[in-house]
Amino acid sequence: MIKTGVVGGTGYTGVELLRLLVAHPHVELAVITSRAEAGRPVADLFPNLRGHTGLSFTTPDAGALESCDLVFFATPNGTAMTLVPGLLEAGVRVIDLAADFRLHDQAAWEQWYGMPHSCPELLEQAVYGLTEINRASIAQARLVANPGCYPTAVQLGFLPLLEEGLVDATQLVADAKSGVSGAGRKVATGSLLCEASENFKAYAVPGHRHLPEIRQGLEHAAGQPVGLTFVPHLTPMIRGIHATLYARLHDTTQDLQALYEARYADEYFVDVLPPGAHPETRSVRGANHCRIAVHRPQQGAVVVVLSVIDNLIKGAAGQAIQNMNVMFGLAEQAGLTDIALLP
Amino acid sequence: MIKTGVVGGTGYTGVELLRLLVAHPHVELAVITSRAEAGRPVADLFPNLRGHTGLSFTTPDAGALESCDLVFFATPNGTAMTLVPGLLEAGVRVIDLAADFRLHDQAAWEQWYGMPHSCPELLEQAVYGLTEINRASIAQARLVANPGCYPTAVQLGFLPLLEEGLVDATQLVADAKSGVSGAGRKVATGSLLCEASENFKAYAVPGHRHLPEIRQGLEHAAGQPVGLTFVPHLTPMIRGIHATLYARLHDTTQDLQALYEARYADEYFVDVLPPGAHPETRSVRGANHCRIAVHRPQQGAVVVVLSVIDNLIKGAAGQAIQNMNVMFGLAEQAGLTDIALLP
Amino acid sequence: MIKTGVVGGTGYTGVELLRLLVAHPHVELAVITSRAEAGRPVADLFPNLRGHTGLSFTTPDAGALESCDLVFFATPNGTAMTLVPGLLEAGVRVIDLAADFRLHDQAAWEQWYGMPHSCPELLEQAVYGLTEINRASIAQARLVANPGCYPTAVQLGFLPLLEEGLVDATQLVADAKSGVSGAGRKVATGSLLCEASENFKAYAVPGHRHLPEIRQGLEHAAGQPVGLTFVPHLTPMIRGIHATLYARLHDTTQDLQALYEARYADEYFVDVLPPGAHPETRSVRGANHCRIAVHRPQQGAVVVVLSVIDNLIKGAAGQAIQNMNVMFGLAEQAGLTDIALLP
Amino acid sequence: MIKTGVVGGTGYTGVELLRLLVAHPHVELAVITSRAEAGRPVADLFPNLRGHTGLSFTTPDAGALESCDLVFFATPNGTAMTLVPGLLEAGVRVIDLAADFRLHDQAAWEQWYGMPHSCPELLEQAVYGLTEINRASIAQARLVANPGCYPTAVQLGFLPLLEEGLVDATQLVADAKSGVSGAGRKVATGSLLCEASENFKAYAVPGHRHLPEIRQGLEHAAGQPVGLTFVPHLTPMIRGIHATLYARLHDTTQDLQALYEARYADEYFVDVLPPGAHPETRSVRGANHCRIAVHRPQQGAVVVVLSVIDNLIKGAAGQAIQNMNVMFGLAEQAGLTDIALLP
Repeated sequence: MIKTGVVGGTGYTGVELLRLLVAHPHVELAVITSRAEAGRPVADLFPNLRGHTGLSFTTPDAGALESCDLVFFATPNGTAMTLVPGLLEAGVRVIDLAADFRLHDQAAWEQWYGMPHSCPELLEQAVYGLTEINRASIAQARLVANPGCYPTAVQLGFLPLLEEGLVDATQLVADAKSGVSGAGRKVATGSLLCEASENFKAYAVPGHRHLPEIRQGLEHAAGQPVGLTFVPHLTPMIRGIHATLYARLHDTTQDLQALYEARYADEYFVDVLPPGAHPETRSVRGANHCRIAVHRPQQGAVVVVLSVIDNLIKGAAGQAIQNMNVMFGLAEQAGLTDIALLP
Repeated sequence: MIKTGVVGGTGYTGVELLRLLVAHPHVELAVITSRAEAGRPVADLFPNLRGHTGLSFTTPDAGALESCDLVFFATPNGTAMTLVPGLLEAGVRVIDLAADFRLHDQAAWEQWYGMPHSCPELLEQAVYGLTEINRASIAQARLVANPGCYPTAVQLGFLPLLEEGLVDATQLVADAKSGVSGAGRKVATGSLLCEASENFKAYAVPGHRHLPEIRQGLEHAAGQPVGLTFVPHLTPMIRGIHATLYARLHDTTQDLQALYEARYADEYFVDVLPPGAHPETRSVRGANHCRIAVHRPQQGAVVVVLSVIDNLIKGAAGQAIQNMNVMFGLAEQAGLTDIALLP
Repeated sequence: MIKTGVVGGTGYTGVELLRLLVAHPHVELAVITSRAEAGRPVADLFPNLRGHTGLSFTTPDAGALESCDLVFFATPNGTAMTLVPGLLEAGVRVIDLAADFRLHDQAAWEQWYGMPHSCPELLEQAVYGLTEINRASIAQARLVANPGCYPTAVQLGFLPLLEEGLVDATQLVADAKSGVSGAGRKVATGSLLCEASENFKAYAVPGHRHLPEIRQGLEHAAGQPVGLTFVPHLTPMIRGIHATLYARLHDTTQDLQALYEARYADEYFVDVLPPGAHPETRSVRGANHCRIAVHRPQQGAVVVVLSVIDNLIKGAAGQAIQNMNVMFGLAEQAGLTDIALLP
Repeated sequence: MIKTGVVGGTGYTGVELLRLLVAHPHVELAVITSRAEAGRPVADLFPNLRGHTGLSFTTPDAGALESCDLVFFATPNGTAMTLVPGLLEAGVRVIDLAADFRLHDQAAWEQWYGMPHSCPELLEQAVYGLTEINRASIAQARLVANPGCYPTAVQLGFLPLLEEGLVDATQLVADAKSGVSGAGRKVATGSLLCEASENFKAYAVPGHRHLPEIRQGLEHAAGQPVGLTFVPHLTPMIRGIHATLYARLHDTTQDLQALYEARYADEYFVDVLPPGAHPETRSVRGANHCRIAVHRPQQGAVVVVLSVIDNLIKGAAGQAIQNMNVMFGLAEQAGLTDIALLP
């Protein structure tokens, strides 16, 4: 059994992580911390967990966390970096579900996140946890930076094209739509049902923090600078991300369907749909899958890729479990066999 | 492994049954029939099942079904009764998720369902599959009539009061609210998103088919005739039933909280919440639990019971699996350990 | 033109009031105050008002308000009572959309609202603004206490029965369901889309502030003490209240349909549906109507009344305009002719 | 008063048209036809109209329609073309809200709509009813082809850029999202609440019927062939279209904000938001406005235009009324002054 701790488990990423850890066959969930909710039973805050765990939130305590094999951070950006160095030193492995270690470039990180980084020396060491790309490094990693939700959906959609150099990498468009849980459980007027339901809008068009993260990943795949326009939207539902990706093909003779199927043939969690299909976010609700379809409308030079994930699972907690499984030599699907809940 | 078949698996009850059967550790899903979808892969109709089953729908075939240990019917009312006698004769056990065998009284059945019953001799033999009431009989049953969704939520909420004779059984009120999946996957104007979302309404106030089923169960518990006003409502969400139950106490000195806790102490799937709580339907979304709270507003003579289930799980497919587990001597929770999906 | 001011116009009741006032043919909206948003154009906070008003929020100022003919309060409970005495003294008439003046009984008010009342002498003078009951008094009133949303739906539904003494007034049940806008625009975890959508729950079963208000109105109609069980629920939509009302008839020979039709024959905003109908909340979305249906299930002794309103219109801002029209001798429908938005 | 008739008023476009016509100060609604609902009061099908119209649906009748000044068609594609020639001959003016007369190119029309056109000679004569473009021609028109919903939002967003030749017209992308009412009121599995809520998906990526219509309009504005990738999506709400438009600027020195403000300065129904804004679909719910924002992310060469409308109003019934007003010399806003309903 892997002894695990969770720092900051009161948000939506946190409750999903708890749900998955509690049911994982090879995990002992030893500690879950929250300064604000210390002393409160987890199942009191999240009634779906009643009967499944007797744990209560505790005040963060270095000793308790250092006794774990692995600690997950499901905290706001800027928290993990204050605790991670000590944990690594104590021999604990770490998966950070926030953004603290996602960018290799310290200056870019500080610019986009608006604060100094307290342990920049770890930025290079941290392994970016998009399992399908970095599986081997993740297996060895002490510190995994779990990807953002949009970056997961967008990168998995674009990668086969960029790895093969089939498209003009300077003119990519990612039009992405997210359910409201992407904004977290913190109270904010814009996340109220009366503001966000029966409504659709774009946000952060001038620049969203996931832009540099996506670009970093795409440039790594393309081996060249990438020009990306990324527009996120809020869609009136709880869970799910749908990324609609546009790129211009260098030539139009390539069998894109075959390319995608081959690229992901061995990836259990990436499902390439048959030609002509349109993936639905509900087909991955509660599951760790990414489903992808590739289109070339009117047989033209523009390729349109549709990529869906559950932002809280493959876009957060599920991918963290997937990375944990890789880090500890377990079957990659362990604890991730839930079938999406439909309808 | 229990070899199972499903007749009629194209509705919402069907897809939930398939999801649960595919993941059940002791079940082999051998055959799934649908006249309309014969030849089509199940995962094509229900994309959440992609990668989890390679089965295709087949035309109903007596031989294939008779080779099963157990056959589930997830068909419209009136279908199961045409096939069940033959299956029972062939030694196959049956769980009917429709209403064909729920009422013991043939005349009442024919009145409420508007058709003659083709095998009334089985009405008395069929065991009503509210597991918490009929566990012993279910274990021996050849034919189980799986309860309706409203009847499950209402009966579990009222039973402790009626079994102990604490309330005026002639003046019960059940005000129940259901998500739209209760209306099934058939196309109907009233189930369109544009008709049913951002809207709330009562329906069938003059009389709903679940009324005689509920009354039959409550009268069995009370040992006397019961006067019940039952008003169902449509609430703009996919899953969930919330029953708000009202009854007048004979005396107000009884500790109702203790009564409910004692009654359900050994019931894994019935969770009595702490005093003052209000159960939420989402706390059971995708799970087989019923969560109940008991109130006595302003310490008066009226008891208010709040009871929530997922209409597709404890109100349909999950309870069917629970009954199967009992019938075949498995752990009652086998295949039903999913934690509710929240948010 | 009636010169009007609005104190506290940043909530959902406020924006509805502004929408209606801006379009009202006989109103000049002179001042709209909000301490928090002072200086901000109203249309910046509420983009639906872009192009319809150039007003900005201002800091509350006695002089500006005293220059009005009428001031509306759309403030949290406890605010209006601090300003109303001064306004009345200055000859300004007042409609309070909050609860400050809804109860005649000071002790009850202080108990349910948890604060001392600063001008209890006005409690008796204030006219309860359920227009259909108090039209004549409202016409003369200096201070109108606009009813709560639940109280409006419940009272309009019960009144014909109680006025005629047809039911057992000691055993009434009001099972009410509200959209989330009833909780206002203030940030609260429970009002987040991810908490409140795809979910249904009761709340405040031990006691809700609208209970004494409803009871006061029903007792006035019945001319005797009333026993009422009131259970509010949160339903996953923005707007709308559906009240399902239960009462026991003294005798079952009365033509209830005729009774309701006669009672509301002259009420433009109360629509009695044909026998057998089920009103839908969307049929009054954005409109000032209350639609009602009366049922006697299985021709028994229990009468079930279904009553729907838009909680922000007939349950708040629309009724306030209706009262203003009565107070100033305008046609009661002036500015209230919008047809409900469907779908 | 303009005497008007409506052919086919049982869909969502129909009910909106009725709602607007009933309240229009210069219109007499004389006849509303529906073969399926003949004899049924309109207010019975659409309960929001109770008390606002006493009309009943009638079987289509040439005489009754020919007595009108103007007939609207809110019918499925292919119906209007069978009746329009006769009406025009009888001197009746026509606005077709379906697609029968939207394309000038007969071959293209027949290819995309899959049927022969029965009066191709009218294709050239029909005026395309995007009021902001064709106001003068509409004023004189006998036959107006009311634009589709997507085409309205996309064209209004792209026009200023194309008219001025500022972008590469061969590489346009329109990523559009529609509420479910865009699919109409006909029963279809995909439009069920349980299929379409809590879900997001693209559809018709290989080719949607609005593509040639949009391209025709954009080419007219650009004066050159246009390369457009158009991807529609279904978003889980009732009303609203959000178009996110991408184009590559020839040079980046142009003040795009000023360009848009100037272009639409005299257009009452087109609202250019301030720099940095993100329009929300709810800001136009129930209103005839189009709200637009222009962005140039990271000051690059890609311009992103956000354009929102209510698909049933500016995208259908409202624009039809706007065109009627122009055709009959009324104020363009007559009957279209409703403020959007928010929340």
